[in-house]
Amino acid sequence: MDNWQKRSRPFRLEKRFEFDTYDETRDFLDRLGEHTEAVNRFPDISFGKTYVNITLRPDNDKTPLSEDDFKFAEEIDGFFH
Amino acid sequence: MDNWQKRSRPFRLEKRFEFDTYDETRDFLDRLGEHTEAVNRFPDISFGKTYVNITLRPDNDKTPLSEDDFKFAEEIDGFFH
Repeated sequence: MDNWQKRSRPFRLEKRFEFDTYDETRDFLDRLGEHTEAVNRFPDISFGKTYVNITLRPDNDKTPLSEDDFKFAEEIDGFFH
Repeated sequence: MDNWQKRSRPFRLEKRFEFDTYDETRDFLDRLGEHTEAVNRFPDISFGKTYVNITLRPDNDKTPLSEDDFKFAEEIDGFFH
């Protein structure tokens, strides 16, 4: 799990991915979208032409981050290539 | 151009679109993505399972909003159905 920022109040993981072109940004978003749908988990995503910011929160904001959250973050890293 | 918030410092238009399901959210994002690519203009977009927030800025943050910006906002409204 590379370069995810752990934050609290509320507990969350955040990461910014940068791209050279809009096509690469879009491809990443498409892979991510298919995965979030497959696992039925929908992080908050912000994006522009060449960046994507992702915020992962536990199901309950009061809950600390769990192994599941770190695993999901790693899966997302896998879509960045 | 319905319910877009005009803001300044920097000049921008903002709107939140809400959906009943992730499928509807995704369909809207797909239509929006094709259009932004066609017109080569890439607003900042944030989304989660059932919402999409869009921020439109003029090409130069110091420039006030123009007719082009309002027209682009109207086109986006057209993708929400």
